[in-house]
Amino acid sequence: MKIIKAKKILNFENAFKILQDKAIAFEKTIIQIDDFEKLKNKYKNATIIDCSNDIIAPGFINTHTHLEFSSNKTSLVYGDFLKWVESIVKSRDNLSKEANDKLIEKTIKSMMKSGVCTIGEISSFGIDLEICANSQARIVFFNEILGASDKICDDNWDKFIKRFNASVKYKNDKFIPAISVHSPYSTHPILTKKACEFAKNNSLLMSAHFLESNHEKIWLTKGSGGFKKWLLNFNKNLEPMYNIDSFLKYFKDIKTLFTHCVYVDDFSKFDKKMHSITHCAFSNRLLSKKTLNLKKLILSGIKLNIGTDGLSSNISLNFFDELRANLLIHDSFDLHKLAEILWISSTINAANALNLNSGLISVGRLADIAVYENLKCEDSELLLQLILQTKEAKKLFIGGDECSF
Amino acid sequence: MKIIKAKKILNFENAFKILQDKAIAFEKTIIQIDDFEKLKNKYKNATIIDCSNDIIAPGFINTHTHLEFSSNKTSLVYGDFLKWVESIVKSRDNLSKEANDKLIEKTIKSMMKSGVCTIGEISSFGIDLEICANSQARIVFFNEILGASDKICDDNWDKFIKRFNASVKYKNDKFIPAISVHSPYSTHPILTKKACEFAKNNSLLMSAHFLESNHEKIWLTKGSGGFKKWLLNFNKNLEPMYNIDSFLKYFKDIKTLFTHCVYVDDFSKFDKKMHSITHCAFSNRLLSKKTLNLKKLILSGIKLNIGTDGLSSNISLNFFDELRANLLIHDSFDLHKLAEILWISSTINAANALNLNSGLISVGRLADIAVYENLKCEDSELLLQLILQTKEAKKLFIGGDECSF
Repeated sequence: MKIIKAKKILNFENAFKILQDKAIAFEKTIIQIDDFEKLKNKYKNATIIDCSNDIIAPGFINTHTHLEFSSNKTSLVYGDFLKWVESIVKSRDNLSKEANDKLIEKTIKSMMKSGVCTIGEISSFGIDLEICANSQARIVFFNEILGASDKICDDNWDKFIKRFNASVKYKNDKFIPAISVHSPYSTHPILTKKACEFAKNNSLLMSAHFLESNHEKIWLTKGSGGFKKWLLNFNKNLEPMYNIDSFLKYFKDIKTLFTHCVYVDDFSKFDKKMHSITHCAFSNRLLSKKTLNLKKLILSGIKLNIGTDGLSSNISLNFFDELRANLLIHDSFDLHKLAEILWISSTINAANALNLNSGLISVGRLADIAVYENLKCEDSELLLQLILQTKEAKKLFIGGDECSF
Repeated sequence: MKIIKAKKILNFENAFKILQDKAIAFEKTIIQIDDFEKLKNKYKNATIIDCSNDIIAPGFINTHTHLEFSSNKTSLVYGDFLKWVESIVKSRDNLSKEANDKLIEKTIKSMMKSGVCTIGEISSFGIDLEICANSQARIVFFNEILGASDKICDDNWDKFIKRFNASVKYKNDKFIPAISVHSPYSTHPILTKKACEFAKNNSLLMSAHFLESNHEKIWLTKGSGGFKKWLLNFNKNLEPMYNIDSFLKYFKDIKTLFTHCVYVDDFSKFDKKMHSITHCAFSNRLLSKKTLNLKKLILSGIKLNIGTDGLSSNISLNFFDELRANLLIHDSFDLHKLAEILWISSTINAANALNLNSGLISVGRLADIAVYENLKCEDSELLLQLILQTKEAKKLFIGGDECSF
């Protein structure tokens, strides 16, 4: 048992609240939240952690990363999604080679330093499996499947199952195997169907890149544009494999994180209970030529969560950097209202999206807890100022264990 | 004489160009740009600086800062301009006390580290005079005048002249006294008229905050809104002292930097030869509820320059942080096109706005030169990647002298 004293505890249950000068007793989960003296008397053998000048918040959940691209700095071309994809194809092998275990571990730690307890990792090749499975961080490990030609479906499915089973060997409450369907322009319906059925039968989380670029939208809605030319490289069948509705249909009744959705016009096509939108603002700026319509999304009632994407389309995986980028990109939003939306999206909303019992400082929840330096400001300014001023967490607990960065 | 070898020299003369593997011979100004061997043979006693793996660019010009507010971190309230002004009035004395010479010097150095050679400093109180005058940086020192009541005009003018004369004592080619009229809501026309005449008679640069907030616009165009209530504290005369046109009229034929202009609808009201717009994107996000209409501004032909504003409304004065913020805020712009606009606005445009013979790597120009680490990317990606990836300059020369950070 541990007891941590805090100046302020940020809570997002029902509405945003700040608990002043309280303490939390926790093991793997949060046992009790009360006055420090009460907890100390009740749990006499507990280890005391004095953060009585600091702020405690639920650890962030970064729902979308690509750790296998962690070595990229300037190899990829930004500004247009197709040019970027071409540069990915050109540089993929080199970038993968450079992304060794040491670099991936360093990248995970750099995220944890910024308050991230859980990472939703999209694994394209599986080279990140062991390091993720052995990480201090909580990882939802999305094994990715793709392949646009019907001729390679069987082969790709076999390879996918092999990779998926390899990930299942590591399964525990901190490492959760899941499935990613790459996208409607890259994944044949045979594979999508099989993957979705497999997910349903095994109660697995899913993820899919969806409507990230203008090219993808033109391709899916009109069957034309730059994508048509590019897809010739992989597939002679020059008709889109889906339209917007037919792709989404596969994910009916499956808990799925749809990533990007920059070109979604109608969010009512998603299922409020099962689907959520993963927003990667910095990545979208570098690749997508458009910004997620956050106002429309919020009005639709579909829940938002926040990802940094990988270093293949971001300059930093520090989660506060991503939140700051969100403050700038969504510049028509009221600053304080947006700060609250971002905090909620990065904690409780993301936990709900990933079926995790974390994301709140609340009795019974997982003790995934971040400690930040307190800031001298009014409580009404605190969520905003934390995003503006914080570079790193002072401490991080995942499942009750203190992390070392 | 010094000779510096470079891998790439970025030049913005007429069009953007990159000189490959060249060298620059310079003293206070740039003497010659040519092959290294040629320069070495010609200037036999020159000190050689080998940056043959690095990039050279004209040093940045940060046209708008408030160093006297350098101690702020979380004291001020963001999200609404009037609430921010109220928090400034409340915290001004404390913040000023904390902004001692040491802190101001540290702040200037932090800017220089990010490649800034010249700073346009708006001095409200004069506490930054000596440290600016003795700085390694090139400083245009805008002595600020304000006062909304006609009763205090004489007194404020006398104080202003005293402060201005004190700054003139330090005048040299690296410290240029100038004038700032605070804003149309805070500066009585008697003072504006006197200041503008004084500037004209003495060929001085001017600066003015202009149409920064919705409150200011409503006040100037309708004589109503939140500003009316707030101005009661200072002035019983509850009519705006200007409309948009009558304020601008005072600055006819005077070289002036109008700062913010977020609520300007018609940029043709400015004089292309004499006026420029200073854009402080991060500051605007925190205070102004709107973003500068950069597309309209560029179409108007009025030139843009870039300022960080002070730490009173920014979280970093690192110039690359501000450029990155611009990339995010102006998210409808083509990324590469915007990167070029930002570089030009931060160098040659700003030099023109401030009547400085810097801003270009060109023979006869001041040797205000920044050295950056080279990045492995196509030349067509370089301006963008430098903004995305650069945290600090490797070296900085101002008027030919190498700076120590």
